[in-house]
Amino acid sequence: MSTAIIAVDAMGGDFGPRYVVPACIASLIRYPSLHIILVGNAQQIEPHMLDLSFSVKQRLTVRPAQENIEMSDSPAQILRGKPDASMRVALQLVREGRAHACVSAGNTGALMALSKHILKTLPQIERPAIMTALPTQKSTIHLLDLGANVDCSAEQLLQFAVMGSAAVQLGGVSQPRVALLNVGVESIKGNQQVRQAAGLLAGLKNINYIGYIEGDGVYRGEADVVVCDGFVGNVLLKSSEGLARLMAATLFEEVKRTFWRRSLAWLNRNMWSEVHKRWSPDHYNGALLLGVDGVVVKSHGAANQLAIASAIGVATRAVQENLPMRLGRHIQASYASLSAAQQVRQNGDE
Amino acid sequence: MSTAIIAVDAMGGDFGPRYVVPACIASLIRYPSLHIILVGNAQQIEPHMLDLSFSVKQRLTVRPAQENIEMSDSPAQILRGKPDASMRVALQLVREGRAHACVSAGNTGALMALSKHILKTLPQIERPAIMTALPTQKSTIHLLDLGANVDCSAEQLLQFAVMGSAAVQLGGVSQPRVALLNVGVESIKGNQQVRQAAGLLAGLKNINYIGYIEGDGVYRGEADVVVCDGFVGNVLLKSSEGLARLMAATLFEEVKRTFWRRSLAWLNRNMWSEVHKRWSPDHYNGALLLGVDGVVVKSHGAANQLAIASAIGVATRAVQENLPMRLGRHIQASYASLSAAQQVRQNGDE
Repeated sequence: MSTAIIAVDAMGGDFGPRYVVPACIASLIRYPSLHIILVGNAQQIEPHMLDLSFSVKQRLTVRPAQENIEMSDSPAQILRGKPDASMRVALQLVREGRAHACVSAGNTGALMALSKHILKTLPQIERPAIMTALPTQKSTIHLLDLGANVDCSAEQLLQFAVMGSAAVQLGGVSQPRVALLNVGVESIKGNQQVRQAAGLLAGLKNINYIGYIEGDGVYRGEADVVVCDGFVGNVLLKSSEGLARLMAATLFEEVKRTFWRRSLAWLNRNMWSEVHKRWSPDHYNGALLLGVDGVVVKSHGAANQLAIASAIGVATRAVQENLPMRLGRHIQASYASLSAAQQVRQNGDE
Repeated sequence: MSTAIIAVDAMGGDFGPRYVVPACIASLIRYPSLHIILVGNAQQIEPHMLDLSFSVKQRLTVRPAQENIEMSDSPAQILRGKPDASMRVALQLVREGRAHACVSAGNTGALMALSKHILKTLPQIERPAIMTALPTQKSTIHLLDLGANVDCSAEQLLQFAVMGSAAVQLGGVSQPRVALLNVGVESIKGNQQVRQAAGLLAGLKNINYIGYIEGDGVYRGEADVVVCDGFVGNVLLKSSEGLARLMAATLFEEVKRTFWRRSLAWLNRNMWSEVHKRWSPDHYNGALLLGVDGVVVKSHGAANQLAIASAIGVATRAVQENLPMRLGRHIQASYASLSAAQQVRQNGDE
């Protein structure tokens, strides 16, 4: 494995360095060729860096940054102000080639705006999109966009499909099935953008477009890549988290209701620990910002240590796969096939 | 309890009369003053009506209708063609005053288009919306729209809020908390329609508008009424169903994995049956079509007997509450307060 240097925004998320630093240490122990640059307030970071082994200490450095980006900061405020914000400094390390990737649990809109501003987008891509993996009945499904773009044109949905398909293919799935999220599977269903995007996707030769998918089809694993606008994707993801928590809470309420049930649960404790693991969304934390010229991973704001370590794992794998460069090539190939198809159609129309 | 006469589209849904007729019989046993008119193909309905008690037989009639509406029929096709479709005939019974409500598990777009065409909308309402109840950590939350309107203006979202608030209030919640579904709770988040709707709602005196809610807040029960466009609501509802099924499947896989676990599950069978009941979405089946001049309830297409009986229960309660008439009055009052507020603002601007 080649060396991966990851700049981690230590100040992002609901818990800041208290959770981020231990997650970085755990990741350094897990990946022996990983290097991490912790970016943020050194006075707040260093107390969590005591008693490190020599191997970990050698691969963990701190890059001071004095400002923080708040959840209420608007993208415009962030672009103009806060030159020494930890998120901005982490992204600059990537641009300057001093880190291979950036991981942040901070404000999503800010991460999107700053990534676009500092790293620039790949050719042909108007706006980056955020993609995450979700568990399904069969395997893993990838959903994008998750909130970077609240209003999307058909052309943007097409770009998301091309990026999602390429990223999943680079991750080892051959000919990933790409579907558009819609309110029904019949061709007459949906809004104008989605119907137009379906027409565009059907013309792309090197995308395995399989049609519309409904919300329940996502968790049945009916596709490998599911494309939607950021508003819909964000609502799907967050409501799923809320429902998973609700179901777990009602279940454990029943499990603990009587002494008899608690005794049976104790006898079955191995099973409950396996259920807990299988249900935990922490394994799926770490959403890739696709379409910027660099590896950027967004972690959930309320992520715990295990979840932040998952996000660092996503970034590490993307660096090893050389994601941005290979993604750029895939996008070029897809667009070449699209313009060839449009050429043929235009010639036919004449 | 006064008599409620409900016209049930026997041909709608994935299973037709085979599930619909037994669900009607169960509902007639449960509600002694309920009458049901089964609308559809008599040859297919009658084989499921054997061995009825005298009381049930007296309150169950069949109104033949020879055509069915398919899932692939477009609203335009449905409005022009199929004069003898079971769904259309059921709605006509409501318009003619021969039934108080219509229940169908058929094509949602068709039910919406035909309801609007046959029953007309209430004054001030451009388009009806579909509302359902969902379980949360605290109590029940009501979500609308669920797919009747895939593109919504701010003005339509406002109308949904007014209708949802009024319907939930008539159902017994005083001053229901109304929230707009969004990708964040900060005022800068979201798309233009949602931000504009927030501005309009803040000006309505008799609506308890509490601001934005995110997907996870829905299942935490942070509001009583959650308003969104039909695309987003449909995705939220269907992905929730898919996730609930996935979580139940992974849990029961673990529960049955070994002989030891199966034995413990048998000893704990009361708990498992309670968990099964608490998790079942069947209790929440039956979505109200708000804004048409009549009670119309949409059942899930894949609804089983228990679920269809729930939908008939929703319709029965709406008839008892005299929903359309009282909803019309509430809407008038809300709009009077809105125009008064706009008047004050305009005077202030002058």
